[in-house]
Amino acid sequence: MIITLTTDIGWEYAAEMKGKILSINPDAKIVDISHEIMPQNVRQGAFILYSIAPYFKKAIHVGVVDPGVGTSRKAIIIECKGNVYFVGPDNGLFIPAAKRLGIKGVYELKIPKNASPVFHGRDVFAPAAAKLSAGKKAKEIGKKIDSYVDLDFGEASIEEGKITGKILFIDRFGNIITNIEGKNIQQENFHVKIGLVEQKVRLYPSYGYAKKEEILATIGSSGFLEIARREGDASKYFSAKQDMKIEIFF
Amino acid sequence: MIITLTTDIGWEYAAEMKGKILSINPDAKIVDISHEIMPQNVRQGAFILYSIAPYFKKAIHVGVVDPGVGTSRKAIIIECKGNVYFVGPDNGLFIPAAKRLGIKGVYELKIPKNASPVFHGRDVFAPAAAKLSAGKKAKEIGKKIDSYVDLDFGEASIEEGKITGKILFIDRFGNIITNIEGKNIQQENFHVKIGLVEQKVRLYPSYGYAKKEEILATIGSSGFLEIARREGDASKYFSAKQDMKIEIFF
Amino acid sequence: MIITLTTDIGWEYAAEMKGKILSINPDAKIVDISHEIMPQNVRQGAFILYSIAPYFKKAIHVGVVDPGVGTSRKAIIIECKGNVYFVGPDNGLFIPAAKRLGIKGVYELKIPKNASPVFHGRDVFAPAAAKLSAGKKAKEIGKKIDSYVDLDFGEASIEEGKITGKILFIDRFGNIITNIEGKNIQQENFHVKIGLVEQKVRLYPSYGYAKKEEILATIGSSGFLEIARREGDASKYFSAKQDMKIEIFF
Repeated sequence: MIITLTTDIGWEYAAEMKGKILSINPDAKIVDISHEIMPQNVRQGAFILYSIAPYFKKAIHVGVVDPGVGTSRKAIIIECKGNVYFVGPDNGLFIPAAKRLGIKGVYELKIPKNASPVFHGRDVFAPAAAKLSAGKKAKEIGKKIDSYVDLDFGEASIEEGKITGKILFIDRFGNIITNIEGKNIQQENFHVKIGLVEQKVRLYPSYGYAKKEEILATIGSSGFLEIARREGDASKYFSAKQDMKIEIFF
Repeated sequence: MIITLTTDIGWEYAAEMKGKILSINPDAKIVDISHEIMPQNVRQGAFILYSIAPYFKKAIHVGVVDPGVGTSRKAIIIECKGNVYFVGPDNGLFIPAAKRLGIKGVYELKIPKNASPVFHGRDVFAPAAAKLSAGKKAKEIGKKIDSYVDLDFGEASIEEGKITGKILFIDRFGNIITNIEGKNIQQENFHVKIGLVEQKVRLYPSYGYAKKEEILATIGSSGFLEIARREGDASKYFSAKQDMKIEIFF
Repeated sequence: MIITLTTDIGWEYAAEMKGKILSINPDAKIVDISHEIMPQNVRQGAFILYSIAPYFKKAIHVGVVDPGVGTSRKAIIIECKGNVYFVGPDNGLFIPAAKRLGIKGVYELKIPKNASPVFHGRDVFAPAAAKLSAGKKAKEIGKKIDSYVDLDFGEASIEEGKITGKILFIDRFGNIITNIEGKNIQQENFHVKIGLVEQKVRLYPSYGYAKKEEILATIGSSGFLEIARREGDASKYFSAKQDMKIEIFF
């Protein structure tokens, strides 16, 4: 069975998780999603998991973006429809992805006494994922619980001639990914305001339609509005950062 | 069968491609070549594919360096000798590698109506590669075509006492990889001129022979002349950038 | 069998090694540890291999941090207890990890005449690892030798009220990993001096216990004392660099 890894711990520490997993289940198929989430940026990790989740079938997604490691935050398994599991910290990291698939149950993992208090990824999540991949059921590994820490991307507010949303995430090209759903954008030309910068943009089917260095709008591959710059970095143009407000004027 | 991925889209987006591939063919063996090609740098991607191609047998190489995504540029499969395929945009990305192996045929992929216009890697190339890996033939997936967008690394010009070439690519150490074939360098000592900087260098079998911080020449692992600096960054020394002219004086 | 790769050569060159391995043994299971070790930083590579080694069973660890490539430095296989092998340069890279597992024998690899003198990773180590993974014995591939280049992390010196150690490695969060073993720290509060900066710190079970931006001490997942900053970069605070001295005052 497939085990994916989405972490902020870097490749080297993630390798210890891989060793643990393969020692328990040598047949596990490990897929690296990312090990370079911005340190402790739970929202960025949540967005990536939300984006990739629909494309995997029968997978166990392990996530380690875990500022609360070693404290009283719980370790959990979330069982979803379609034989998909999430394993990691109870800090909201998995919730947008898990809700997208449909949550069937949540299970709390016991923290072994000899687990390193700085690295539950290796000593708690990896073994649990390996056991799931080897055929164990979630209820055999964890204890069913009823509540968990929630997280959502917020909903854009839609008024006459204006939409107000926020920046979910800036990708490696400097594209600005927002929480404004593409279906709410009906017009081809509008103004975008982020911080102090306001800019007229056109909505294109893809980057390739814009002129070189043009600031443009497009609907990203996850269905959300993105502001981009052809062969450039839109985040620099707007001095945009994660969580900032974005306003659209029609 | 092996499916390799060479992209400029970052690990997170590449993960969506991996999910798509494994959903279609759970037995595919995915090998990450790179997801950090310089954004839209088709020439860099082409050089990397050219370098790795001879070392893989029976592989399907998917490439996503795709500034024209969503426009009228074609999506293609290139079938080569030795059971090797390339799948991706028709922008020259695969041509140096494919010519190195020997091209048997080129096939155009149909773009499904529901494909994201910003992410053919996930919605067009990944499914095609997965089907090839599961045993489908190129002609069953695409339509044979006769022409494709070409790309080459240019040929160095050789005169009496002088070779003029260009910089193909600068690697992560700052080594300058040129399009001058190693077999054309017969002398051990010569002058290199890049931009405004001229420097005497010695040709060594490898970096390890040079003194600390010495600027040196060597024949890289792909057979091309490289200019390097022992325990340093040659590209900074010369202010060298991709596509600049390089002159060698004997 | 599992083949892990720990290199400073970047993903693109590492891909040539993967192709070589899979051409010789298509069933090899390749695990990427890191391809972004600091160029030629043998000590950093050694620390990473030391950290990951206990978590892999029956693995072949290939390491390429190899400033002496192409010179007279030997290429070796180290056979360890538990069916673990290390394959790479004889420059100390594997010694802390191999000693941790228990060395059974060391074998010298012959360098083929047609091996690229700049890339033994591809032309010497990868084929040797692939053959080991396919069932060949170390003694069938190499020639037993008695000596090898040693490397250790040094031992912290313990006096009344003071421990003097050194910085092994700074991780991507800016955490300072030292060679002071955690078992030697008995007190909860102490002073740390690195370079010109002296700072009172408290020892926590994990980062999560500290206040935002607090400089703290913790025992890292490899058992060594780490100096960290909650939601910050401790290495910047101390202007700390690898190999610097660190003093602890109780």
